[in-house]
Amino acid sequence: MAFRPDRRLREPVYRQLADHLRELIEAGRLGAGQKLPATRELAQALALSRNTVTLAYQALDDAGLVSAHVGQGTFVARRPGGPALRVAGAPPEPEAFAWEGLLANRSRGLRLPAIVRGGGFAPRVAFDFRCGRVAAAELPVAELRRAFGRAVDRHLPELANRLDPQGWPPLREALARGLLARGIRCDAAEVLVVGGAQQALDLLGRLLLDPGDAVALEQPGYVGAALAFAASEAHCIGVPVDPQGLRIDALARVLRRRRVKLVYTTPAVQCPTGVALDEGRREALLELAEAHQVPVIEDDYDGEFRLGGPAVPALKTADRDGRVIYLGTFSKAVFPGLRLGYLVAPAPLVRRLAEARAVSDYGSSLVPQAALAELLDGGAMERHVRRTRRRHAERLEAMLTALAENLPEGTRWLRPAGGAAVWVTLPPELDARALHAEALAAGVAYAPDALFSLDEHWGASLQLGFAEASARSIHDGLAVLGEIVTRHLHGLPRPAAAGSAGGHALRDAQEDRP
Amino acid sequence: MAFRPDRRLREPVYRQLADHLRELIEAGRLGAGQKLPATRELAQALALSRNTVTLAYQALDDAGLVSAHVGQGTFVARRPGGPALRVAGAPPEPEAFAWEGLLANRSRGLRLPAIVRGGGFAPRVAFDFRCGRVAAAELPVAELRRAFGRAVDRHLPELANRLDPQGWPPLREALARGLLARGIRCDAAEVLVVGGAQQALDLLGRLLLDPGDAVALEQPGYVGAALAFAASEAHCIGVPVDPQGLRIDALARVLRRRRVKLVYTTPAVQCPTGVALDEGRREALLELAEAHQVPVIEDDYDGEFRLGGPAVPALKTADRDGRVIYLGTFSKAVFPGLRLGYLVAPAPLVRRLAEARAVSDYGSSLVPQAALAELLDGGAMERHVRRTRRRHAERLEAMLTALAENLPEGTRWLRPAGGAAVWVTLPPELDARALHAEALAAGVAYAPDALFSLDEHWGASLQLGFAEASARSIHDGLAVLGEIVTRHLHGLPRPAAAGSAGGHALRDAQEDRP
Repeated sequence: MAFRPDRRLREPVYRQLADHLRELIEAGRLGAGQKLPATRELAQALALSRNTVTLAYQALDDAGLVSAHVGQGTFVARRPGGPALRVAGAPPEPEAFAWEGLLANRSRGLRLPAIVRGGGFAPRVAFDFRCGRVAAAELPVAELRRAFGRAVDRHLPELANRLDPQGWPPLREALARGLLARGIRCDAAEVLVVGGAQQALDLLGRLLLDPGDAVALEQPGYVGAALAFAASEAHCIGVPVDPQGLRIDALARVLRRRRVKLVYTTPAVQCPTGVALDEGRREALLELAEAHQVPVIEDDYDGEFRLGGPAVPALKTADRDGRVIYLGTFSKAVFPGLRLGYLVAPAPLVRRLAEARAVSDYGSSLVPQAALAELLDGGAMERHVRRTRRRHAERLEAMLTALAENLPEGTRWLRPAGGAAVWVTLPPELDARALHAEALAAGVAYAPDALFSLDEHWGASLQLGFAEASARSIHDGLAVLGEIVTRHLHGLPRPAAAGSAGGHALRDAQEDRP
Repeated sequence: MAFRPDRRLREPVYRQLADHLRELIEAGRLGAGQKLPATRELAQALALSRNTVTLAYQALDDAGLVSAHVGQGTFVARRPGGPALRVAGAPPEPEAFAWEGLLANRSRGLRLPAIVRGGGFAPRVAFDFRCGRVAAAELPVAELRRAFGRAVDRHLPELANRLDPQGWPPLREALARGLLARGIRCDAAEVLVVGGAQQALDLLGRLLLDPGDAVALEQPGYVGAALAFAASEAHCIGVPVDPQGLRIDALARVLRRRRVKLVYTTPAVQCPTGVALDEGRREALLELAEAHQVPVIEDDYDGEFRLGGPAVPALKTADRDGRVIYLGTFSKAVFPGLRLGYLVAPAPLVRRLAEARAVSDYGSSLVPQAALAELLDGGAMERHVRRTRRRHAERLEAMLTALAENLPEGTRWLRPAGGAAVWVTLPPELDARALHAEALAAGVAYAPDALFSLDEHWGASLQLGFAEASARSIHDGLAVLGEIVTRHLHGLPRPAAAGSAGGHALRDAQEDRP
C-alpha cells in the first residue's frame, strides 16, 4: 500500500490517505470483505500518526466504503460505492465546518453497527416479528393515564425539588419491595433507577472498564451490551450458548486465558435464544466468578415473563458476596419509550454509579418515575404483567404451531423458557441476507442472528418475536415466511458465499420440526 | 516516602500502599492541604504500576482522607479522620466483594467534587438562595397535568412504538419552531433532544474529546460542564470573566498556547455572574474560533429569562459555518426533574450524537417529551415563561434593595442581564468557608464561588438565587446574611488562612454598594 502524503497540499493528510484507500477500493485492489490493516500497523508502515489513520478509516466508514466491527477491525464494505462519497474529490466547502475531523478516536465506540442503524427505524410492516414490546392496544391506557395524572397532582412539589440521581426514593422503595417476588432481598440504598437497561450497561462500562479491558458475554447475545462495553473501548469476548444456556466450560477457558473484568449474562431468558440457564450451571457460574474474582452482570430483562414451568430463580438470589449486579427494565413490560429500568448492587457501588449518573445526565425524568411507582404500588403493574404473560403464552403456542405447519424440513427451533420470541434455525444452505430482504419486502420483519452477533455474522438463525402479534398475524405471517424459505431452499440456486452451518446455530438438542 | 510492598501478604499492594499513606496522614507527616505526588511520579519512585498508586489514592479518597481536584491533583483532606476509615485495618470481610479494586482508572472522572456531593442534597432551609429552579407553587400545575394526560391519551400508540434516540420528532419540530423567537433558524434534523444540558455536555465530551484533550471554559463557570469534560478525561483550562463576559484576550492567549478542542461559554447569562457577553466580544469570539478551527458550545441555559433591556441575541445567530453548538434546557423554565433539554448543531454532528445517545441510554422518556411538545405548541410554556420572567424581575429589585440595605461596606454585586441570581463579592478578608457554614446553620443557603471553580477555591464571591424566594424571604434572609457577614467582618479575628482577594472576584467595574 504505497502512499506518501503531500504535506504541501491544503488537504489534511488523513483525507489524502482516505482518498488513496478509496481509489484502491474502487479499483478493486482492496476487495469487498477484505480486512484493512490495524490502525497501529498501518501508521507504523506509513510513518504516520495513528490518529491520521484512524481519521482516514473513519472518513471511509462515513462514506460507506468500509465498516468497522466491534473488536474485529475494519473491513471493506460489501457494496462499495453507495450514495454520497463524502471523502471523494474536493476538500469540504468553506462554509461547512469540518466536524468529522474533530471527532475523538474513542468516538468510534459510540456508533451503532450498520445493521442496527439501518433496521432501527425500519418502516412498519404487515407482520412484525421483531422482538419485544407490548402492543400499544394492550397497554393499560386508563391506568397509565391515572398514574401520570397522580404523579403530577400528588408529587409536583416534590418533583420540582432537587432530584436524586440515584432515583426517586419512593420508586426505589417500591422496586425493592417488588423484587421480593423475584426472591431478591435488597433495600432502596442498593437500587439505582436508570433510563433503561442500556444506561445501566453504559454506566457500568464507564465505571468498571478501561480501554482494552476484556468482557465476556453470550454469543449469540444482546447487542446493546456489546455496544455499551465497546463504548468504553473494552474488548468483547463471545462465549457460546447451548440449550442449557451459557456454556460454563467455555467461559472457564476464557477466564483462564484472560483477565476478564466483567461477565454479562441473561440467565432467566437468554437473549436471543430464550433458553434458561440450567440449575447446575448457575451454581458453577457463581463459583467460577468467585474463583476469578470477577463480577457478573445479570440482565433479567424478561424475568417476569416466564412461559409455563416454575420461575427460574434469579442468579442474584444465590449471590453470596454481592458480586452479581442485577438489571431489570420496564421496556418489555410497559413500553420502551418509558425509559425506566433499575440496577441492584451493593450500596457502595450504587453510590458510585449514582455519582456517574449525576455527571452524565443527572438522573431520570421524575414524572415517569413517580408514575411507575404509582403503577407498582397500586397493583396495576402486576395485573398488567399477568395479563401480558397469559397473552404471551397463547401466542407462543400459535407460533410453535405455525412454525410446524409452514417451515420446511430441516428447520429447528427452541421452546423458550420465557420472554416473547422463538429462536429458529433454518437449513444452513440458505442465503440469510437475501432471505431477510425478501421477507421484509413481503411484509415480514424478524431479527436475523447478525443482530445478536459480535461480528454481525449472518448465520442460519433468526428470532421471531410475538409480543405484538395476534394469533391471526402469526398464522398468516408464518405462512408467508414459510413460503419464502421453502422457495429459497428449493427454487433458487445456492448462493456461492453460503454453505457453512451458520455460526450461531445452537449445537445440539434443538427441538426438531415434528 | 519509604514504602516496600510485602508481596507475600494476601492484602493487595494498593491496599498496603493506601494503609502506608494513611499512617503518614494520621501521624501528621502529610499535612492537611498538602498535595500528594502525581500517580506517575510516585509509581516510578516506588517501582509500582501506576494503576496501583491510582487505586491506593482512590481508596484514600473513598475514606475521606484525601480529595482529588479536576486537573489539579490529589490533596490531603482538611479534616482527616472522618467517619468510616474503610482502608484502615484488616482486609475486607470475606463476605463482601471488593468493588473498589475493580473500578476503572477513568472512573475518577465520574465523581462529583466533594462540595457538590455534600451540598446536592442539603436539607431544606428557611432562606434558600441556591440557584435556579421555579418554585413548585408557581408551576402551572393544571397545564402540566393536562399536558401529561394528553401525552398519554393522544400519543400512546406512537409512544409505545420504537423510539428515535434523536428525540420525538414532533417535539424536535416544536423546538425548531420555538427557536425562531431566539433568532435561530434550524430544522428538526439539527435538533437533538437530551435529558438536560448535562447530558448534552457529556455526549459532546464523549464524542469530541480524547484523554488529555484541552477544553477552554469560563472561570468562574458552570461546574457541570467541567465535570462532563473531566469525565472524558479532558484537561479543563479556565478563562477569566469580567463584567463584559468571557475575556476574549485571555481566550486568545490560551488558544495560541494550546491545541484546544472545545470552547464552552454561557454568553447570554454568564453562569454564575449573570453578565451578558459584550456585543463586540461575541464577534471576536467567533472570529477567534474560526481562526483556530475550534467549535464553541453556547449554553443558553437561561436565555429566555432576560431581565429588562433587549434580549441578547444568541451567539448561534451569528454562526456562519455551523461551528456553534447551541444548548437549551427546561430545567430552569419548568423544573429540573423534567430532565429535558436540547442541542442544535449541524445535522451530521447531530446524527453522530444520536448514535452515541442510542448506545448510552437510547433516548429520553417519551411521555415527558410529548407533554413538553403539548406545552410548547399550546402556548402554555410561553405564558409560563412570561409570568416567571415578571416575577424574576420583581425579585431582582427586592434582592438589590435588600443587598444595599443589609450588606456591609465593601460588598459589591452585579446587576444580572438575565437568569435568577445575583453575583455578590464580599470584602476579601472574610473566611468564606466559615461564613458559608454559619449562614447555613442560621437557615440561609447560597452557592459559594467554590461551586463554580475548577479547583474548588473558596474566594470572596457567592451567588444568591432568587427564583424560589418571595420578596419577604429575600428581605428577611438578606437581613440574616447581612448580620452574619457584618459580624464576621468586625467581631471575629481574621482567620490566618484568608487574606488574598478571592480568586474569582471580577476584577473591575463591579457595581459598588451605593
